[in-house]
Amino acid sequence: MSPARQRIADVLDRAATRNAITAVIILNAILLGLETSDTAMAAAGGLILALDALCLTIFVFEIAAKLYAHRMAFFRNGWNLFDFAVVAIALVPASEGFSVLRALRILRVLRVISIAPRLRRVVEAFLTALPGMASVFLLMALIFYIGAVMSTKLFGDAFPDWFGTLGESAYTLFQVMTLESWSMGIVRPVMEVYPLAWVFFVPFILMTTFAVVNLVVGLIVNSMQDAHEEEDAATRDAYRDEVLARLEAIEERLRARDS
Amino acid sequence: MSPARQRIADVLDRAATRNAITAVIILNAILLGLETSDTAMAAAGGLILALDALCLTIFVFEIAAKLYAHRMAFFRNGWNLFDFAVVAIALVPASEGFSVLRALRILRVLRVISIAPRLRRVVEAFLTALPGMASVFLLMALIFYIGAVMSTKLFGDAFPDWFGTLGESAYTLFQVMTLESWSMGIVRPVMEVYPLAWVFFVPFILMTTFAVVNLVVGLIVNSMQDAHEEEDAATRDAYRDEVLARLEAIEERLRARDS
Amino acid sequence: MSPARQRIADVLDRAATRNAITAVIILNAILLGLETSDTAMAAAGGLILALDALCLTIFVFEIAAKLYAHRMAFFRNGWNLFDFAVVAIALVPASEGFSVLRALRILRVLRVISIAPRLRRVVEAFLTALPGMASVFLLMALIFYIGAVMSTKLFGDAFPDWFGTLGESAYTLFQVMTLESWSMGIVRPVMEVYPLAWVFFVPFILMTTFAVVNLVVGLIVNSMQDAHEEEDAATRDAYRDEVLARLEAIEERLRARDS
Amino acid sequence: MSPARQRIADVLDRAATRNAITAVIILNAILLGLETSDTAMAAAGGLILALDALCLTIFVFEIAAKLYAHRMAFFRNGWNLFDFAVVAIALVPASEGFSVLRALRILRVLRVISIAPRLRRVVEAFLTALPGMASVFLLMALIFYIGAVMSTKLFGDAFPDWFGTLGESAYTLFQVMTLESWSMGIVRPVMEVYPLAWVFFVPFILMTTFAVVNLVVGLIVNSMQDAHEEEDAATRDAYRDEVLARLEAIEERLRARDS
Repeated sequence: MSPARQRIADVLDRAATRNAITAVIILNAILLGLETSDTAMAAAGGLILALDALCLTIFVFEIAAKLYAHRMAFFRNGWNLFDFAVVAIALVPASEGFSVLRALRILRVLRVISIAPRLRRVVEAFLTALPGMASVFLLMALIFYIGAVMSTKLFGDAFPDWFGTLGESAYTLFQVMTLESWSMGIVRPVMEVYPLAWVFFVPFILMTTFAVVNLVVGLIVNSMQDAHEEEDAATRDAYRDEVLARLEAIEERLRARDS
Repeated sequence: MSPARQRIADVLDRAATRNAITAVIILNAILLGLETSDTAMAAAGGLILALDALCLTIFVFEIAAKLYAHRMAFFRNGWNLFDFAVVAIALVPASEGFSVLRALRILRVLRVISIAPRLRRVVEAFLTALPGMASVFLLMALIFYIGAVMSTKLFGDAFPDWFGTLGESAYTLFQVMTLESWSMGIVRPVMEVYPLAWVFFVPFILMTTFAVVNLVVGLIVNSMQDAHEEEDAATRDAYRDEVLARLEAIEERLRARDS
Repeated sequence: MSPARQRIADVLDRAATRNAITAVIILNAILLGLETSDTAMAAAGGLILALDALCLTIFVFEIAAKLYAHRMAFFRNGWNLFDFAVVAIALVPASEGFSVLRALRILRVLRVISIAPRLRRVVEAFLTALPGMASVFLLMALIFYIGAVMSTKLFGDAFPDWFGTLGESAYTLFQVMTLESWSMGIVRPVMEVYPLAWVFFVPFILMTTFAVVNLVVGLIVNSMQDAHEEEDAATRDAYRDEVLARLEAIEERLRARDS
Repeated sequence: MSPARQRIADVLDRAATRNAITAVIILNAILLGLETSDTAMAAAGGLILALDALCLTIFVFEIAAKLYAHRMAFFRNGWNLFDFAVVAIALVPASEGFSVLRALRILRVLRVISIAPRLRRVVEAFLTALPGMASVFLLMALIFYIGAVMSTKLFGDAFPDWFGTLGESAYTLFQVMTLESWSMGIVRPVMEVYPLAWVFFVPFILMTTFAVVNLVVGLIVNSMQDAHEEEDAATRDAYRDEVLARLEAIEERLRARDS
């Protein structure tokens, strides 16, 4: 790394710089909140938009500086990619004025996560927990796919709004899984036409609920083991090593005298 | 086992064969999904149905081969029975054209579970957890049966749709247990006629919810113990054995010298 | 205990007697279920009622025999009291024909719990867990009482159906705690009149939900400790005792030689 | 502390005084409950109000006595501050007759918590658990803020009742997080106008639900560790110390003889 790039990397890494960026993120969050208020926009719309643009400019400069300092290594860190994407999203709507994309600008606030180590750790803990749950997720995807195909075929003609297509069925089944209005809203009306519909829905609810419970149980067991190991291991190992060392010393001494 | 049967069994067990079957299952899942789409059927209905029949043929051949190789031993494995049933269901509607049975053909996709070891293990873990929960399940069945008989007798005349028969009562109580619209949908209307109905429903909710919590707690404790034992036992036992062996050696040495 | 009373106590304790009583309970459960069906009653109403009366007679004789054998000691066992109450309830409606009491006859089926040791243990485990949760229950009762008084005073005039009296408020708050239609059904309508009603309901939901979570966590920790102690204690203690005994023996030997 | 102040502090600390105060709190709770009943107020309104005023007077005197005894040290204890605030609230409405403040008088009953050590401990345990959950709370606040800004921008114009302002959006998102009528009540109507609204709501539900699960898992792991440490530590440490002491003694003896 050239001295110039090194110096920029150092400046970016300083606590003061990080705090300043955090402050800008929070200011930006407040500005984007104010933008939703008609009164605030009527009173000081120009100022709000100007400050918002300023915040965005600071972010762009920060990322440009990081890119200059780290070159392609910048993209090897997941959190950098995250910051880049979140700011990039913010740039697109600014130029296009497309309403959904403009709403996505608030995602910039997520940069708080990448900058605050404690939040970062929570998200990282979540991400590392995911692979262990892959099997259960796959199983749930399977149950959902099978459920969606079956309900579309069985109830699609009579209830096109809920079970018309695979996607609509999957959405309705997700609603049923969360137990929201599953009976009064969905299954009772369906049973007016197909009295045996409960044969499909009740097992579906039991299976998906059980799968969710399984996920939670898995999470608890994992967290517990992690906490357990950290806590005990250090003191226990020290104790074990000492006992074994002392026993060895005693034996050694006895053996020496015997010979 | 004759050499011919042995050779077939070997071919079926090969990773390549398993992967091919997995690919056919996934292809079949996609085909059965496409069958629910009117656009897809209009564009390529013949092809989809032909490929679906081809998939089914492959499954039938695979199972026939397995049956030839293993004879009656085939039926001793639960997963083989599962595969057999799931393909057999798929055969019935193909010949009968009965709409419910045709919807059941998607169950073929469940073969993914019997072929992927990780999914298999999740399902097996679930099945082995069941017996430990038998008492609580029995208790819940008891609560449901008593609740269904009582609510049918008490509210059946005034609310035939919800509590007309034992079955309808059980369904309504299941809905109440999931807390779906229990108050605004069911209990408040019932209380218009029987103002003291809450004396039945509130304890019912508390008891069933508590039973469900108990099931989950039991699951957590079991998984935790399993994880605990696996993890610790090996290293701990090794350490214990070493300490005891060394102590014995020291004593032995001392005793030898004393004599 | 006189020989006659002892003999009766022995007969009642035999596995065969217990199985026979269990069979009668299950038969009775089926009969009480059939009584809810108009078709069954039209076809064989007389037979069903006669068999039901027979079952009840058997229960009365069994309890009378137990009372004769154990005298007042009968009432010292909680499960006996339970059996007595459940059969006594069944006797009252038979003579009075009061509809609610007649519905309570199904409670007789609960005798299955007192006769099956495994079900008994689940219920006993539940009962022994209760005292440990007393503080949290008291706290929840407090939150409910305060919530009921406040909501009655605040919203009682405008929503007499939901918050008219302390009892109605408590019921509505229970519904809100179970999250059933709390917003669309209750709080949004209330907010039409009192726009700040969420200041009362959202903290109420957070507090009660948290209290429930606390109860569940307490249950998990308790079960885990019970399981943990049982499992480990035996082997661990044996190992510890052996290590200490051996160490003592070594020291003893060394001391003996030194003197 | 002067003798007079010391004597008052002693009197206040006596079990008899505490019990008397507890009795007054409970009496007051009943009185405030009776005030919500029109029948009770019609029959004995004057008496109820007089007794309520008496209870309040006792509380004021108790706190005045405590203040006199402990001076500013009174305010250093959180529970004293709590008592002070709760009685002070009760004084304001008595003089103003402002209906919301009058409803807050029932908060006086919360003094039961500060007087009963077991309830106190539950609340203190809850408060000490809070800091450990700060990161997850912050993350949820972030998700809510982002969700509120996005939904206000996206759906605010079409659904001003639900997503008109940041506050309304936050309330609606809280309802969605509790899964209350999220689909039939909110998302399905929204999807009539914006068919892709589920792309926002389904991930929102998954993320917030997961965050809540994370909180509960954290609570369980913490309680478990606390319970674990207390239980084991004492006996285990005693054993470890003894083993090490004995080993040291043996070595010492051997070393002494060798020299």
